[in-house]
Amino acid sequence: MAELIDGKQLAKTINARTQQAVTQLKAQGISPKLIVIIVGDDQASQIYVRNKHRKAKQLGIISETRQLPEETSQAELLEIIDQYNHDDTVHGLMVQSPLPPQIDEDAITRAISPAKDADGFNPVNVGNLYSNSPLNFPVSCTPKGIMTMLAAYQVKLAGANAVIVGRSNIVGRPMAALLLNASATVTVVHSHTKNMQAYTREADILIVATGIAHLIKGEDIKPGATVIDVGMNRDEDGKLTGDVDFDSAESVAGKITPVPGGVGPMTIATLLQQTVELAKWSE
Amino acid sequence: MAELIDGKQLAKTINARTQQAVTQLKAQGISPKLIVIIVGDDQASQIYVRNKHRKAKQLGIISETRQLPEETSQAELLEIIDQYNHDDTVHGLMVQSPLPPQIDEDAITRAISPAKDADGFNPVNVGNLYSNSPLNFPVSCTPKGIMTMLAAYQVKLAGANAVIVGRSNIVGRPMAALLLNASATVTVVHSHTKNMQAYTREADILIVATGIAHLIKGEDIKPGATVIDVGMNRDEDGKLTGDVDFDSAESVAGKITPVPGGVGPMTIATLLQQTVELAKWSE
Repeated sequence: MAELIDGKQLAKTINARTQQAVTQLKAQGISPKLIVIIVGDDQASQIYVRNKHRKAKQLGIISETRQLPEETSQAELLEIIDQYNHDDTVHGLMVQSPLPPQIDEDAITRAISPAKDADGFNPVNVGNLYSNSPLNFPVSCTPKGIMTMLAAYQVKLAGANAVIVGRSNIVGRPMAALLLNASATVTVVHSHTKNMQAYTREADILIVATGIAHLIKGEDIKPGATVIDVGMNRDEDGKLTGDVDFDSAESVAGKITPVPGGVGPMTIATLLQQTVELAKWSE
Repeated sequence: MAELIDGKQLAKTINARTQQAVTQLKAQGISPKLIVIIVGDDQASQIYVRNKHRKAKQLGIISETRQLPEETSQAELLEIIDQYNHDDTVHGLMVQSPLPPQIDEDAITRAISPAKDADGFNPVNVGNLYSNSPLNFPVSCTPKGIMTMLAAYQVKLAGANAVIVGRSNIVGRPMAALLLNASATVTVVHSHTKNMQAYTREADILIVATGIAHLIKGEDIKPGATVIDVGMNRDEDGKLTGDVDFDSAESVAGKITPVPGGVGPMTIATLLQQTVELAKWSE
């Protein structure tokens, strides 16, 4: 049976380190501050933002949620972002997705100062990542959290055959860059790939981020592989389930993340870790 | 025997189109202008810049080479870049590599306005590429030229298994992004990859950019594959030779680029094409 990669436990460890870092920064006169802007009343977003806020406060980060009405115009949102960009007390800034249709998400991503870009989505930071820049810069939190997991579970990256299923801007693409920067051999497979299993079965490290429940089964996995499941799907009974069929996978994989309790808890922990890094880098 | 991908001929076609586009832009009152800054006396760079200049003029592009002394400071170079960034008559701007040791190449890349970034190396544009942005933006010229070749020779990209050997910022990485954006399955292999041949032998499209002469032999190629050789190595006799062993490869490949006369001629053609695109986008 595969070793479980316990994201819940690891998130606690990361949070404890973040809390320590906050204490140290405060001793130097810097109080890390995160602003989360939310437009409209999307229920899932409201819950997610509330969780971020609560956890940030627990760790000593000053957290403010800026709730804007559903009918906020793009110009108004850009103006508010500009204010935070110029506010020296703010270190991390993000706008919760999804946004109402009158707002161009791409324009918002570009408007957030790269130095305060808590999500790591600004093209400057995406470019830094893909160029393997030696500078400090933020990175999309889910793949960054996965790198933390791989390191914590001592998964060897250099020379490993890493296969990423899914090519989203939030997970698949930045994951590919992070693993390539860490000298893994990297393949990205996606909906146009023919015979996906031919790739997944050769993967030493398999990252699955498709939003398709149970796409990957035990027979699609190389014996002993490390399997990271980014999926967060609801089954018919409303139960959270991954993109990997855990039951058949856990007898084949060497290490595997459960859903829930795997990648999920790492994302907020990484966002807060990154907020504190942004504060540190702003010195 | 493989079909030859004739980069020399295709570059002529691209140049003819560029010349036409220049004529059209001039009729609209826009005279595309390219500035190439060169620092010091590196002989290869001098020749390369002279070739760009001559070809640009032939196509009707206003071309200026700004020669700076070897001892130019970073601050002086940044000041000069800033002037061109603010000069509305300039559409394309690039700084020739290599730079003398007192100048930080990364800082120079960042200083060039993304809207005038003829080389496509600014992190904003790298980020646009990796995010598959719907906006207009420049891209590193060698991989962009390879995409033009693949299109001209009707190589099917969506669903193809593309393998890129080499992970440089100038070729391998942007090539991976372009092919992924075109819905190929993309693998990047490099010096840390174990058993590289296991990947190259499965490639429908094989792009080789390593700087290692004759690294890839016929036996490493899938029968019928499209093979693009980015190598420009000098052998003992000073003869230009590729990263692919052409003699053994051409009997296996379906389509193949020669060296010289393959990728090489496409790079300058693409730079000039892109300069005119930047002029058009600046409207």
